[in-house]
Amino acid sequence: MHTSNTPAFSLLVPPDAAALKQVQKQISAWVHTTPVMTSEQINARVGQKIWFKCENLQKIGAFKYRGASAALSLISGEDLQRGVTTHSSGNHAQALAKAARERGIPAWIVMPENAPAVKMAAVKGYGAEIITCEATQAAREATLLEVQSRTGAVFIHPYNDYRVIAGQATAALEFLEHAPPLDSLLAPVGGGGLLSGTALACHYFSPQTRVIGCEPAGADDAFRSFQLKTRLPSESPHTMADGLLTGLGELTFEIILKYVSEIATVSEAAIVEAMHLIWERMKLVVEPSGAVPLAALLEKRIADPGEHIGIILSGGNVDLGHLPWNR
Amino acid sequence: MHTSNTPAFSLLVPPDAAALKQVQKQISAWVHTTPVMTSEQINARVGQKIWFKCENLQKIGAFKYRGASAALSLISGEDLQRGVTTHSSGNHAQALAKAARERGIPAWIVMPENAPAVKMAAVKGYGAEIITCEATQAAREATLLEVQSRTGAVFIHPYNDYRVIAGQATAALEFLEHAPPLDSLLAPVGGGGLLSGTALACHYFSPQTRVIGCEPAGADDAFRSFQLKTRLPSESPHTMADGLLTGLGELTFEIILKYVSEIATVSEAAIVEAMHLIWERMKLVVEPSGAVPLAALLEKRIADPGEHIGIILSGGNVDLGHLPWNR
Repeated sequence: MHTSNTPAFSLLVPPDAAALKQVQKQISAWVHTTPVMTSEQINARVGQKIWFKCENLQKIGAFKYRGASAALSLISGEDLQRGVTTHSSGNHAQALAKAARERGIPAWIVMPENAPAVKMAAVKGYGAEIITCEATQAAREATLLEVQSRTGAVFIHPYNDYRVIAGQATAALEFLEHAPPLDSLLAPVGGGGLLSGTALACHYFSPQTRVIGCEPAGADDAFRSFQLKTRLPSESPHTMADGLLTGLGELTFEIILKYVSEIATVSEAAIVEAMHLIWERMKLVVEPSGAVPLAALLEKRIADPGEHIGIILSGGNVDLGHLPWNR
Repeated sequence: MHTSNTPAFSLLVPPDAAALKQVQKQISAWVHTTPVMTSEQINARVGQKIWFKCENLQKIGAFKYRGASAALSLISGEDLQRGVTTHSSGNHAQALAKAARERGIPAWIVMPENAPAVKMAAVKGYGAEIITCEATQAAREATLLEVQSRTGAVFIHPYNDYRVIAGQATAALEFLEHAPPLDSLLAPVGGGGLLSGTALACHYFSPQTRVIGCEPAGADDAFRSFQLKTRLPSESPHTMADGLLTGLGELTFEIILKYVSEIATVSEAAIVEAMHLIWERMKLVVEPSGAVPLAALLEKRIADPGEHIGIILSGGNVDLGHLPWNR
């Protein structure tokens, strides 16, 4: 029974303006308020004014910590004590592991047995238990179900969950508070958690801002889904932006179709150039996925971005020993 | 004749507390107030609490922009119009070039003919005129004198100038305002502009903070000078920290002897480890020189740094194609 004064958060309909604000407040003590930065030289290079929201400086080095924190803040105390679980070999795994540890609850992370050792080590470093499985979707899901039934842990999907979407939306909420009015706001799109959250935030709090998803041309399922208005799977994606390999979820796609203005695709060469520019000029470590929106501006792949542009630098988790300009 | 209400800035004695505050105010519109950041993981690694002052996020990617801005703000209008000049192949050259361009005055930079093309391009990119000379100290000085007599430009030394020292001190002034009380404050030492400014700032505004200079063992002239209380030249220095090759100046050494508690030296391996940690954990691009203070903590080269430690991340200008962990 829901007895407090806070409105209940629905798992069944997209979060409304009040729900986003509620989540922002609930996670404010857990997440970093990340800085907004600018670069005169990058502005001169693209001929527009850009504000960057530095989610690479978020805990675990990516915006994913917001979604994980939001989910945990919306689970009731008793359920929470049983712990949480997910399947992920990326930033969501680290985010959920760390968010769980900060609250002193257990986390079980299902990872394919061929996941990079460095990613497994990071998740273990945050104190989560890793359960490996075969590298197939079927094995992942079966293993996850087994963990759930054995432990009673709550499943937190990496993106197809309104709690997670609301958490990712808080990056844009903060951004809108700390930047001047934006003509457009660009975010990378993989599973769509960040993009759908950003779209909801702008819809409610800055409706004049066009929200634009940015995607590698080698993993353009969101672009094609958006054109066809039918959700397509991500098949044989090929890009260095390893955070954007996933296909959209049902829930994220529905929001994106409704509130996103445009999806732009970019070349791998432009991703490298954008990433190098951000490292060199802004002194910030961003991962390839985080450089995709700037790549779209460099390649002029967006019809009408306007004069004042916001970009979410989604993350900075990259193998420093294998940088794309050294290959 | 000095007629305004601001006290005159003396070029002959070290700046006092009022002079530092005056300079901070005068340059506040020209420089970035850089963020102070922390990393739980680095704190856990060293077992202390560290606050990092991110001067790698300063304009031109280094604290040097503060010193150049301070010097320009202290030159009278008529002299300023004739322009400025210096000899430098490092961050000071870029800093002076950009600071001059922002005020619409000319800058002539004397650089050795063997200076890296990328550094010359950066200085040219800021609109300064480069005058090349033979790579000897005598040729540098002769060329500089020739430029001065031809143009009437004011010479701004990279560090041995109280205006520049006062400008570099503003990094510590801001730091003390934005961090909790610090037991010690660590800065790298090359020519000594940053370290002497930091020492003055703490002496006046946080006397309980021990100021500690950090230097590569392969370029330990400041360490040896400090022990002997006699200023020694930097002879055949060998370190990847290319910002710290220079010897101390007369003016910086005098302040350092008086107000610095200790100078610590570090190995090249520790510099690489510290730099990698900052890139990986903080998602910040720092140059080797900027990583030297953290290296001193990793190697436990400081007798009693206390619990609350400040570190100035001095700069982030590094060749991204040649990173030390890829060599």
